[in-house]
Amino acid sequence: MYLEKITSPADIKGYGAAERQVLAREMRDAMLRRASVHGGHFGPDFGAVEAIIALHTVFDSPRDKIVYDISHQSYPHKMLTGRVEAYLDEAQYDAVSGYTNPEESPHDFFNVGHTSTSISLATGLAKARDLAGRQENIIAFIGDGSLSGGEALEGLNVAGEMDTNFIIVFNDNDQSIAENHGGMYPQLRRLRETNGTAPDNLFRAMGLAYRYVADGNDTEALIAAFSAVKDSTHPVVVHIRTQKGKGYKFAEEDPETWHYRQAFDIETGALKHLYTDPYQTATVDFVKEQARKDPRFVFLAAGTMGGIGLTPADRAELGSRYVDVGIAEEHAVAMASGLARGGARPVFGTYSTFFQRVYDQMAQDVAVNNSPAVFVSVGASLYYMNDVTHLGFFDIPLFSHIPNLVFLAPTSLAEYEAVLRWSVEQTRHPVMIRMPVGGYEESPYPVRTDYGDLNKAIRVAEGAEVALIGVGNFAALASAAAAELAGEGIHATVVNPLYLSGLDTALLDDLRANHRLILTIEDGIVDGGYGQTVAAYYGMDAGIRVRCYGLTKEFHDRYSSRELARAHHLTAAQIAADTLTALRRP
Amino acid sequence: MYLEKITSPADIKGYGAAERQVLAREMRDAMLRRASVHGGHFGPDFGAVEAIIALHTVFDSPRDKIVYDISHQSYPHKMLTGRVEAYLDEAQYDAVSGYTNPEESPHDFFNVGHTSTSISLATGLAKARDLAGRQENIIAFIGDGSLSGGEALEGLNVAGEMDTNFIIVFNDNDQSIAENHGGMYPQLRRLRETNGTAPDNLFRAMGLAYRYVADGNDTEALIAAFSAVKDSTHPVVVHIRTQKGKGYKFAEEDPETWHYRQAFDIETGALKHLYTDPYQTATVDFVKEQARKDPRFVFLAAGTMGGIGLTPADRAELGSRYVDVGIAEEHAVAMASGLARGGARPVFGTYSTFFQRVYDQMAQDVAVNNSPAVFVSVGASLYYMNDVTHLGFFDIPLFSHIPNLVFLAPTSLAEYEAVLRWSVEQTRHPVMIRMPVGGYEESPYPVRTDYGDLNKAIRVAEGAEVALIGVGNFAALASAAAAELAGEGIHATVVNPLYLSGLDTALLDDLRANHRLILTIEDGIVDGGYGQTVAAYYGMDAGIRVRCYGLTKEFHDRYSSRELARAHHLTAAQIAADTLTALRRP
Repeated sequence: MYLEKITSPADIKGYGAAERQVLAREMRDAMLRRASVHGGHFGPDFGAVEAIIALHTVFDSPRDKIVYDISHQSYPHKMLTGRVEAYLDEAQYDAVSGYTNPEESPHDFFNVGHTSTSISLATGLAKARDLAGRQENIIAFIGDGSLSGGEALEGLNVAGEMDTNFIIVFNDNDQSIAENHGGMYPQLRRLRETNGTAPDNLFRAMGLAYRYVADGNDTEALIAAFSAVKDSTHPVVVHIRTQKGKGYKFAEEDPETWHYRQAFDIETGALKHLYTDPYQTATVDFVKEQARKDPRFVFLAAGTMGGIGLTPADRAELGSRYVDVGIAEEHAVAMASGLARGGARPVFGTYSTFFQRVYDQMAQDVAVNNSPAVFVSVGASLYYMNDVTHLGFFDIPLFSHIPNLVFLAPTSLAEYEAVLRWSVEQTRHPVMIRMPVGGYEESPYPVRTDYGDLNKAIRVAEGAEVALIGVGNFAALASAAAAELAGEGIHATVVNPLYLSGLDTALLDDLRANHRLILTIEDGIVDGGYGQTVAAYYGMDAGIRVRCYGLTKEFHDRYSSRELARAHHLTAAQIAADTLTALRRP
Repeated sequence: MYLEKITSPADIKGYGAAERQVLAREMRDAMLRRASVHGGHFGPDFGAVEAIIALHTVFDSPRDKIVYDISHQSYPHKMLTGRVEAYLDEAQYDAVSGYTNPEESPHDFFNVGHTSTSISLATGLAKARDLAGRQENIIAFIGDGSLSGGEALEGLNVAGEMDTNFIIVFNDNDQSIAENHGGMYPQLRRLRETNGTAPDNLFRAMGLAYRYVADGNDTEALIAAFSAVKDSTHPVVVHIRTQKGKGYKFAEEDPETWHYRQAFDIETGALKHLYTDPYQTATVDFVKEQARKDPRFVFLAAGTMGGIGLTPADRAELGSRYVDVGIAEEHAVAMASGLARGGARPVFGTYSTFFQRVYDQMAQDVAVNNSPAVFVSVGASLYYMNDVTHLGFFDIPLFSHIPNLVFLAPTSLAEYEAVLRWSVEQTRHPVMIRMPVGGYEESPYPVRTDYGDLNKAIRVAEGAEVALIGVGNFAALASAAAAELAGEGIHATVVNPLYLSGLDTALLDDLRANHRLILTIEDGIVDGGYGQTVAAYYGMDAGIRVRCYGLTKEFHDRYSSRELARAHHLTAAQIAADTLTALRRP
């Protein structure tokens, strides 16, 4: 076996074609076994094996610097740069992150996980090299799906003006996470069909030199192409045609399903553990029902199936009522504003971590214009993705302080469905909804049908002395803490605020009469969040103390949700204990 | 005179070529007189007169819908859509905003002021039209400078897939605010030089049909071109070559200076009031000095001369140490991260309102990677641009809660310069600096040289009972309020926090000993801001009351700064009076 002996790219530089072929097979075998046990990105890595072997054969990493877009295709790179044990030894599967990571290796330059950033990051490395008078090659490795993102297109334009060494490997597998969308893709297909000679070449239109490799899974052809552009003194694109998921039948046949895959059976491809998210299912059902009921309804996605797992069959059923704009969240938000202004009823869904990309579009395109578009934010919780690049709990400071935008955190499936329905029926406000996150117990709070009385919070339990305000996912936690306190003879008030974008000041004022301690509990960072608006509201009231529960402002990374929650006292027992202590020492 | 009789586009539809020529002259005369008195955008409007006459001749607004990018070129549109008095009658010059505005007219569809959004907004209108089964034309009007922005390029890609009526008028005057930057611009020049026939056409590469008009200031040629694409059933770009500032000698000769112009003398073009911003001047001086001293230093701009008015001479002096990436803030932030990672010392400067466009890049590309890049935010104040689309006071909730990012609000010129120097010399943190805003009195607070002791606030006056924490621009206001209180026998403590990204908890704890009332004063919205973190910090301390001064969470529009400040009690007298009241009623 070659693979287990590789400690750095130097080890493969003397390989011949036959050895490289064996190496590629060994890498795929290792990735397959690891993925079947550990889960992770699949298709992007299986498609990029030969390209990454060729890169590390031709270039001299880390002197030459490769920046991977999203970096979900960097497993082969990690195997060749001193981290092979994490792919061979099951006990070490967790020793590497799913993305490039400078703390792991000097061959990695950035923690990357959001899309379309590689070219821009790499132009900075190239300019820094030029300022320092160094000569290394700078390479951005980017897939066709990422090219629909504005930051990547900005990067192409800037790169096209750089009169210096800059190499873009454009890894074209004719697939985004789902199918590609946008006018550039038929043109890219024409390039593939003409061996790179079709007219109106997007890269040349941006001022870049261009070269095409018809078989991007042919290591030898790639080595020839990369050798030809090595030490280039001008920016150049090497367009390589690869096959996503190559080498594993199921992934080749169904690249969407196999973009990312949880642990599975190698023989059948079947998942080992089936999990259905009731909130996703409810959202899909709602979207399809609404599309049937209302001809003005349209659902927007930005390359991630709306964050709610719309299947090809769902999308086919929705037809023209489903618009995937490619990985282009900014466009999606602005288009939603245009749709609302034109009388349609748009909903745009994506993950909380990707909503971070659209603050300005939400503020300017939507909120300034008070366009009644609806935004469904998925995974806004510490109980969701835990990679530092995919955290979803920074959204409350980001979106609750935009004027006009109504930001809602429903606490149960029933409340979520009611809020969804209201949001698409009303036309007075833009609305953002934190889709609840599964895995916790729901509180059977009363559910309204009209949410037009903005900021109206609901007292779900009447008590005295202590009030717990549990936001969204953490409403049940507030109720559970109240139950613990009841066991100690303290009958706390529990409030479901629902609205993150404003306070129910009448309710807060009422609490003054017979409460001395207010606890806010939110599934997000405390800084700039909901609880702090409550604390500030009571700031001048010496009779009321406020404690805000939530996460510290940190890039928590690959954490155990359970441990992170405990460390932040986000358990009912801890909240109850804190409260007892606080009541004893006023 | 034709112009004064125009109440709607219908009035010009019967015009012949000669009448249209007179109309264009009258429009320019009116705009020139108004600009000389009132100030405003200049070059974009003077260049677009014929195109807008032609659009309103061929299309049927508001049934056909025109969306203007940035909309700083919409003055001719406003003149033709019922608002001519605001351009003819000096007493009514303020009756219209500087941008399109649906509250003014049914011919305007969005409040727009940030760049590169028109195509995306218009795709939403087009899709809504199709869903409703209507037939009107949808037109996006966008300049060449805006095309470097990612949102516009995302929009092109999406438009290229829309199998429906969608018209993009690409208004190419070969100029951004300053000169254009990026690899697409030499290609666009080739299109102009070949009457639109050059190969590698960016628009066709995005799947759009294309047509070229060599003289975009020839109303008759434009009418012919627009008539040819009217009711098109597929997306099409009409590329028109116009002259920025056309019709006024000084603006034609120096389009950068005349992009936007304050009141001036018509004969000489000279400004009526000269104003130099000491902070801009200091920044320009710093940038040039640092470039001389440190070969690793580089200043990044995204199309607005860095927000600090770098002149062509300044830029020439900086040479390769100045990089204008075009209007592409996302790219600039990611590139800054790459530069820092590569060992360079980058500073990226732009306006606070445009930093809104890069939350995710700041969080992911920069902060997750802890890249020591520096960001200078200009105009983060209520005392700056007051158009609803250009407000700069939403930044504290946005940027102070990103982990790793050090966010500083210096209080004086001396402190600003010290902070700038430290930030480019250290390599431990990404740093964002709120450049102070001119026009208020500075407090001669002590200035440090090392800011590595993060979150260290300084007590600039020792007192008791009351402490005022004045942030950045409002430090002097805190001192002034303290002076008023001293007149009443109350000797307040005054604190300069400087760091917005963390609290000096030791200092805040010390204050508990002999203070009962803490006032925070910040030049931004209160919600999610600095003061609320202080209020929450003292949340469990019944002995301390906190009041947060700042703006309410609203899109304040075209306000008087003085009146807005008074309405929010942001004057020394009001703060002192509030304090006296609060002390009397504990």
